[in-house]
Amino acid sequence: MTNKLLYLSQADVKSVGLTMAEIIEATEKGFMEMGNNRVEMPPKPGIHPGEGGDNFIHAMPAFIPAMDAAGVKWVSGYPGNQQKGLPYINGLLILNDPETGLPLSVMDCSWITAMRTAAASAVSAKYLARPESSTIGILACGVQGHTNLEAMNVLFPLKKVMAYDPSPENAEKLARFGKETLGLEVTIVSDPKDAVTGCDIVVTSGPILKVPHATIQAGWLNEGTFVSCVDFDSFFSREALKEAAKWTTDNLDQYNHYKDKVGFFVDCPGVYAELGELVTGKKKGRENATEKNFAANLGLAMEDMAVAPLIYKKAAEKNIGTWLTL
Amino acid sequence: MTNKLLYLSQADVKSVGLTMAEIIEATEKGFMEMGNNRVEMPPKPGIHPGEGGDNFIHAMPAFIPAMDAAGVKWVSGYPGNQQKGLPYINGLLILNDPETGLPLSVMDCSWITAMRTAAASAVSAKYLARPESSTIGILACGVQGHTNLEAMNVLFPLKKVMAYDPSPENAEKLARFGKETLGLEVTIVSDPKDAVTGCDIVVTSGPILKVPHATIQAGWLNEGTFVSCVDFDSFFSREALKEAAKWTTDNLDQYNHYKDKVGFFVDCPGVYAELGELVTGKKKGRENATEKNFAANLGLAMEDMAVAPLIYKKAAEKNIGTWLTL
Repeated sequence: MTNKLLYLSQADVKSVGLTMAEIIEATEKGFMEMGNNRVEMPPKPGIHPGEGGDNFIHAMPAFIPAMDAAGVKWVSGYPGNQQKGLPYINGLLILNDPETGLPLSVMDCSWITAMRTAAASAVSAKYLARPESSTIGILACGVQGHTNLEAMNVLFPLKKVMAYDPSPENAEKLARFGKETLGLEVTIVSDPKDAVTGCDIVVTSGPILKVPHATIQAGWLNEGTFVSCVDFDSFFSREALKEAAKWTTDNLDQYNHYKDKVGFFVDCPGVYAELGELVTGKKKGRENATEKNFAANLGLAMEDMAVAPLIYKKAAEKNIGTWLTL
Repeated sequence: MTNKLLYLSQADVKSVGLTMAEIIEATEKGFMEMGNNRVEMPPKPGIHPGEGGDNFIHAMPAFIPAMDAAGVKWVSGYPGNQQKGLPYINGLLILNDPETGLPLSVMDCSWITAMRTAAASAVSAKYLARPESSTIGILACGVQGHTNLEAMNVLFPLKKVMAYDPSPENAEKLARFGKETLGLEVTIVSDPKDAVTGCDIVVTSGPILKVPHATIQAGWLNEGTFVSCVDFDSFFSREALKEAAKWTTDNLDQYNHYKDKVGFFVDCPGVYAELGELVTGKKKGRENATEKNFAANLGLAMEDMAVAPLIYKKAAEKNIGTWLTL
């Protein structure tokens, strides 16, 4: 019981030193709880300031009893921010004491969002990729390109990275990160096909578009490849998607909302399983070495709430952050 | 543009010195915007930690363009807290810059919640009570008894208060507040009927119960009385409610949700108007001196968001609170 609140800035959250391995473990545990229907996670309501309806601020509440995790992420996405020199994604996460409802911590949510999104890709890959996967293609080398590479490198014996980005600067950044931080062999490619064909794992992490640019064509993917579509269905031609053996998502209700109400995922394959069903074993993951398997995870409040208590506890232990009076 | 965040504790929020008159004005302006369909306010999703489902933590997002107000209130209600010496209601409000989505301030929300709820009662009374109302009955003298008395005293020439509470201590507290702070004549009554009959305005502010205790009977209300049912329909027998000329609420969608999905307001009168319709003049308020009019306002995120920017601006001007790095 406390009437103190721990504030953690973006720098504080990072400096806590939570590893990608720990984030993947927490995220998988969260999906285990979800697969067993032990997570409370209402739909995300939001507001949309500004003209055109492209800006959003979403409330993402979740409660995971087994992880003693309750709270909300209040996260904004403003496409015009980048022109103003501000990040696209901003926001705060409030973590509550499930016993009393009192807030325990307010923390920046952008680092957590970047990391847990990649962790969810890795959890999908654990069940849907070949365990010996060693070559990865990253198409679009922004924040999610980096964190997805880091996450896949935790679970797979990666050796080679094929990096594609329309911006050479972004591709260079990812190449430096892959080589210097992760010790991988990185090839920058100018033809997106070279970041697909020959790869065991492919991550598409470009901008999310309602009308897919559909760069990736049928026949490009090798047999046995796993793809994490971080940017929804933006990168794939419909013909290429017809090659999917297993098309999966993190939450079917949310997927259907985006499909039926928002207009994504037109003519995509039927959903084979939710990630929670793979983690609990209710649905089988990869069944042979030739399946081309896909994850289109859209991001869940549960993932944030699985990670936030670890940040809070480590920060309190290490004396990081600012204690405030309620 | 800022990458600083202003944190305001409960003591900070209070010490800003925003008056009830200012809060009523902001709340009425918010209802004017709502009545003109210029407020974005999605439904409140929530989580419910603990056994029995009585605990809640709700996300209440709202955007009022005309007031440059965007944000969310994340508020918990834990009935068991009082036994632990903790408040029933706790929570934080995040105020955002509508231009960039960046958070501007995190502030305690309990004072705002207490004040704006009473302000909404007063705005309803402005349109539904007799302007010369001078005698008020307060049934249940807790936080809302106090703030509703304060709010009604801003808009009406109050002289006499009839205070009823099963707890003599609570009634005494309200009596002291009424006499010493507001300069009113206060009578503590042990029969609830004495806080109804003879009063121009009646506020019921007891616990919210799904099965109404229905203390107030038909024939108790004088002609021309206005009632603010802060505790929903808990205090009224159905026969007494049949005397209503105008039964109103703050938001019809939410009212219908509580009525049809949660089980409140069984056999209550049909809703005559939303408060925004009264404020904009789309529906008439009181039309004669004999109507018995009711407001059953359930509380809206819009009200919080109408008040929060005033707190933030005054705090920044007065150098109150703690500036944090994002």
